[in-house]
Amino acid sequence: MIRFGVIGAGRIGKVHAATIAANPKAKLAYVADAFRASAEALAAQTDAEVANAEDVIRSSNVDAILIATPTPSHADLIEAAARAGKAILCEKPVSLSVERINACLDVVEKNKSTLMIGFNRRFDPNFASVEARLRRGDIGEIEIVTITSRDPAPPPADYVETSGGLFRDMMIHDFDMARFIMGEEFVVVNALGSSLVDKAIGAEGDVDTAAVQMQTASGRIAVITNSRRATYGYDQRIEVHGAAGMLAAKNIHATSVELSNAHGVCGDPVQYFFLERYAQAYANEINAFIDAVDTGNRSLSPGGRDGLQAQKLAEAATVSWQNGRPVQVD
Amino acid sequence: MIRFGVIGAGRIGKVHAATIAANPKAKLAYVADAFRASAEALAAQTDAEVANAEDVIRSSNVDAILIATPTPSHADLIEAAARAGKAILCEKPVSLSVERINACLDVVEKNKSTLMIGFNRRFDPNFASVEARLRRGDIGEIEIVTITSRDPAPPPADYVETSGGLFRDMMIHDFDMARFIMGEEFVVVNALGSSLVDKAIGAEGDVDTAAVQMQTASGRIAVITNSRRATYGYDQRIEVHGAAGMLAAKNIHATSVELSNAHGVCGDPVQYFFLERYAQAYANEINAFIDAVDTGNRSLSPGGRDGLQAQKLAEAATVSWQNGRPVQVD
Amino acid sequence: MIRFGVIGAGRIGKVHAATIAANPKAKLAYVADAFRASAEALAAQTDAEVANAEDVIRSSNVDAILIATPTPSHADLIEAAARAGKAILCEKPVSLSVERINACLDVVEKNKSTLMIGFNRRFDPNFASVEARLRRGDIGEIEIVTITSRDPAPPPADYVETSGGLFRDMMIHDFDMARFIMGEEFVVVNALGSSLVDKAIGAEGDVDTAAVQMQTASGRIAVITNSRRATYGYDQRIEVHGAAGMLAAKNIHATSVELSNAHGVCGDPVQYFFLERYAQAYANEINAFIDAVDTGNRSLSPGGRDGLQAQKLAEAATVSWQNGRPVQVD
Amino acid sequence: MIRFGVIGAGRIGKVHAATIAANPKAKLAYVADAFRASAEALAAQTDAEVANAEDVIRSSNVDAILIATPTPSHADLIEAAARAGKAILCEKPVSLSVERINACLDVVEKNKSTLMIGFNRRFDPNFASVEARLRRGDIGEIEIVTITSRDPAPPPADYVETSGGLFRDMMIHDFDMARFIMGEEFVVVNALGSSLVDKAIGAEGDVDTAAVQMQTASGRIAVITNSRRATYGYDQRIEVHGAAGMLAAKNIHATSVELSNAHGVCGDPVQYFFLERYAQAYANEINAFIDAVDTGNRSLSPGGRDGLQAQKLAEAATVSWQNGRPVQVD
Repeated sequence: MIRFGVIGAGRIGKVHAATIAANPKAKLAYVADAFRASAEALAAQTDAEVANAEDVIRSSNVDAILIATPTPSHADLIEAAARAGKAILCEKPVSLSVERINACLDVVEKNKSTLMIGFNRRFDPNFASVEARLRRGDIGEIEIVTITSRDPAPPPADYVETSGGLFRDMMIHDFDMARFIMGEEFVVVNALGSSLVDKAIGAEGDVDTAAVQMQTASGRIAVITNSRRATYGYDQRIEVHGAAGMLAAKNIHATSVELSNAHGVCGDPVQYFFLERYAQAYANEINAFIDAVDTGNRSLSPGGRDGLQAQKLAEAATVSWQNGRPVQVD
Repeated sequence: MIRFGVIGAGRIGKVHAATIAANPKAKLAYVADAFRASAEALAAQTDAEVANAEDVIRSSNVDAILIATPTPSHADLIEAAARAGKAILCEKPVSLSVERINACLDVVEKNKSTLMIGFNRRFDPNFASVEARLRRGDIGEIEIVTITSRDPAPPPADYVETSGGLFRDMMIHDFDMARFIMGEEFVVVNALGSSLVDKAIGAEGDVDTAAVQMQTASGRIAVITNSRRATYGYDQRIEVHGAAGMLAAKNIHATSVELSNAHGVCGDPVQYFFLERYAQAYANEINAFIDAVDTGNRSLSPGGRDGLQAQKLAEAATVSWQNGRPVQVD
Repeated sequence: MIRFGVIGAGRIGKVHAATIAANPKAKLAYVADAFRASAEALAAQTDAEVANAEDVIRSSNVDAILIATPTPSHADLIEAAARAGKAILCEKPVSLSVERINACLDVVEKNKSTLMIGFNRRFDPNFASVEARLRRGDIGEIEIVTITSRDPAPPPADYVETSGGLFRDMMIHDFDMARFIMGEEFVVVNALGSSLVDKAIGAEGDVDTAAVQMQTASGRIAVITNSRRATYGYDQRIEVHGAAGMLAAKNIHATSVELSNAHGVCGDPVQYFFLERYAQAYANEINAFIDAVDTGNRSLSPGGRDGLQAQKLAEAATVSWQNGRPVQVD
Repeated sequence: MIRFGVIGAGRIGKVHAATIAANPKAKLAYVADAFRASAEALAAQTDAEVANAEDVIRSSNVDAILIATPTPSHADLIEAAARAGKAILCEKPVSLSVERINACLDVVEKNKSTLMIGFNRRFDPNFASVEARLRRGDIGEIEIVTITSRDPAPPPADYVETSGGLFRDMMIHDFDMARFIMGEEFVVVNALGSSLVDKAIGAEGDVDTAAVQMQTASGRIAVITNSRRATYGYDQRIEVHGAAGMLAAKNIHATSVELSNAHGVCGDPVQYFFLERYAQAYANEINAFIDAVDTGNRSLSPGGRDGLQAQKLAEAATVSWQNGRPVQVD
């Protein structure tokens, strides 16, 4: 029985807590949150106790720490949990700073800790199926990976201010997905960006519309497009071209219902809300972490290095966009 | 808090018990099963107690009875629960005999009991969306309803023996769906049937392949096709033609992934297992029942009369198939 | 070089004349029409000469007669052309009377004439592909054939008066298609019909909405639905279930363009006009006839017997609808 | 009646000649080809006469010249035809050299000639529908245009040698399409390329796999991916994201038939051959040219400037790929 301490009782912390509570191999022991009322509400629903973060991390009744707090606290909490000998599942990103991630991963490494980074999309059944079929050779050697990722609506401009910018905040998921799908590191990144959706985002020095091209040492190419707006729902697609064919994960619609009339043949919009679109991915992610901790498997995917590499690509894209030239990645 | 007694701890009883346990307005109090070990296993997972069926029905700690036992016991258990003043959710069918259903519904009526029949497909989000859009007039007056329903693989021949035959056992769901979608009673039924899948089914005096045409008093038409075999998965589709268009609920696939190569463009097979295909429908059904009991709503849909009418259509189809001529339904 | 005489310069005669003119193995020699002006217009466009029907049939400069006149003249013209030793392609139906067809086919037989009946849909690339794949065994033994056929808009009521009724005028195509696809004769026909689209059609003693079930001696089933209205275009679909899978020919849309917005994901309506939907089928039909005449192949498909059998099914369906009971077909 | 001289009787010259011959407003007067036998064969099929190119251009019996010769002769022939006062439809590209195009367009301008460049894809019904719907505002202001273009199989390496490279030979179509769709000029081009399909192509100093990102002055983005290989057919897709939705033109399949079995649900491969995929586009292009000449419309689309701008983008992409940095376009 893996005993969990959940730090952060917000939107995503609640989703994970429900999955932990429903997994027969796991138990939710403690909930911590800077707002005690949030922690108490979640604890009440899940038969857990409330404690502060430090006490949860130190508790001998806890085996695993789930970190679902705001980004600035991630690295500190990972280090504390690593030093306390806990298994760690931390929401992305470890930090907006590549240096801070490196320092944090040193602590994880020194303590031989089990660390998983919450790139939940790797656990989406559609994307996971694409990856599995690529690895078993369904389309041969990969040539081009295309990722389309569009949020249904832009965040408020004040969110943008502290987000690190679109490349670090939003496209970070796609950088991880591109690495996951490609199975080879990228060596060059070139980014274009614009503020076409909300001028306030541009005024904050950020973009809301972006395209990135990347290439690996062997010449394979990835193309990512992002937008902060998609009127038809949360657009999340992957297309992979290989020597022997194409594998594509299409969007998910609310229902399978189609209306045909004089205007045409119309299906439902794409699922709109990320918690709905990735509900299965979030659950699979937690369950995979529980299985790994349960069996003592330390080579988790996505692990700390995955968090670092995605952040390096986000950093490179940001610089490329700012300077209008390709950036090499080591 | 609605306190439930679940009678029948088999495959479907377990699914329902999990939904009850997860609903904050409900509590699973007791589990009963002819095999005590089954009841104990389910009770242990859900923090419920084990009791025999009569004690569960009589218990003053129980508000609602969920009947998930084999068909022959349904009518007796409904009557006992009705007399004990409990709300009742009973798996379809009430009985394979129309007379027995009539007698049972008299008891339900006399006791003013709340009774829902487990035609789960009405709660499938796709079919429910079609029905809601029909009622709000998306395609105008209905002209033709087409229902395709094919099991992935035939049952063993010894199941067929006690099932009442394809029309009463399998197509009963489609008769209910045709009534639900059409919103008008059928007055004539004409059936064709064959044993094309498994000769053993024919040897039992049953069919494994069937088509039924029905017409309402106003001339609207429904067409149902059934087969005990579909190599590509559990085929569950509805198509409705109206004066102003067509509404169709398509099949559900395991993932949205498509492979394109020299052989063509191929998606996943249709979801294969009924518990997976209708997982959301089963959950929605139980939650709708809980809401109805919670708010004192006694006009449940599908209710006892829905169980009766679907059985009449199944009976008519069976006779039509046996005699090779249309059968009028009152 | 096959020299053609086209009798009937209406809508469909013009389409066929253009195909003949474009085929390097054929030459359009004469055009005849009861309205001389129509014949002259078509002849001018195709470098053909105008003559009356009898002269065309008698001409020693003509090898093949294409009959595209109104139905009542078909049988007489076929007989005349057969006696004149010409190869014949006649638009469906040979006659609305089964007896008249039998008499006509006797003349054809006696003269050993080459006769093709214009069931153009057999030459549609989509339906032809389904048939070819069935014959090569792609889905094993056929179990159920479902044909959906809906005209975009109803004909004027005065057309209905002389049409022979929906089963003989419209569903005749689907009876031929059911035979073509199934590859086995039907022995029982059961029809339902209603006047839901246009009350004037009902007042003429006809139906505008219909469903037919048929069964073969070996128990295979065909289901046909027809309507005189489909707001979304000309609905022409076939679905075949076999022991090893399903083959389906879907509708054809004007373009492949899809619009996604807050209302959903919408494609173009289905192609609306039958001459557009079946343009390729009409061309392939004529070219197949030319090839057959060119190579001396007399066992054309669809031939006279196909015209007869489809008419028998239409007759049986009409009687079944009128009497409300199944009709046996020999 | 527009009298045509066709110069070049190869694959594409034949397609265009057939369209001209079938258009009632046009007449094919002369055919010229460096191989006289090719010219004679085509002339025989179309009732045209054979002449050499200079005589065709000079003939007073010719109104319009269609140039379908190899690329190196295009600019010279355009100039000669312009000086002879003929309307001109020239296959793309005018020249592989931007300077040569400029010089040629000067001659066209000086002679006030009517010139259309054969970017046939603008006339594809699917892409033309996307463009028309964009212009009428179906998805509001454009944000991102994505073009996927993959040939079914690579050309022989010796073709590559004289082709000008993938960006000038193949992606030139996509540069024109990006301009056509976007409706705004691109100011920066960034290209990535690899030789992943055929090492011999890389050995020739060319690429067979490429991605290009471009941006307009107002910040809109276009992404193009190209490959010389697609096992599933000729992949030709466009996706446009705007403020109010997405418009996408999907691939075209040989038939609408789908096979469902235990392996999944499989449609036909994408149409494989460019002459089949773009048959309607080629015909529409010629007919649009004929209409323009017939009505004296001199502002043809795509015109000479379109040929020039696409070539500039191809040039910029080639340089960007070679130097590994973005290239500005004036």
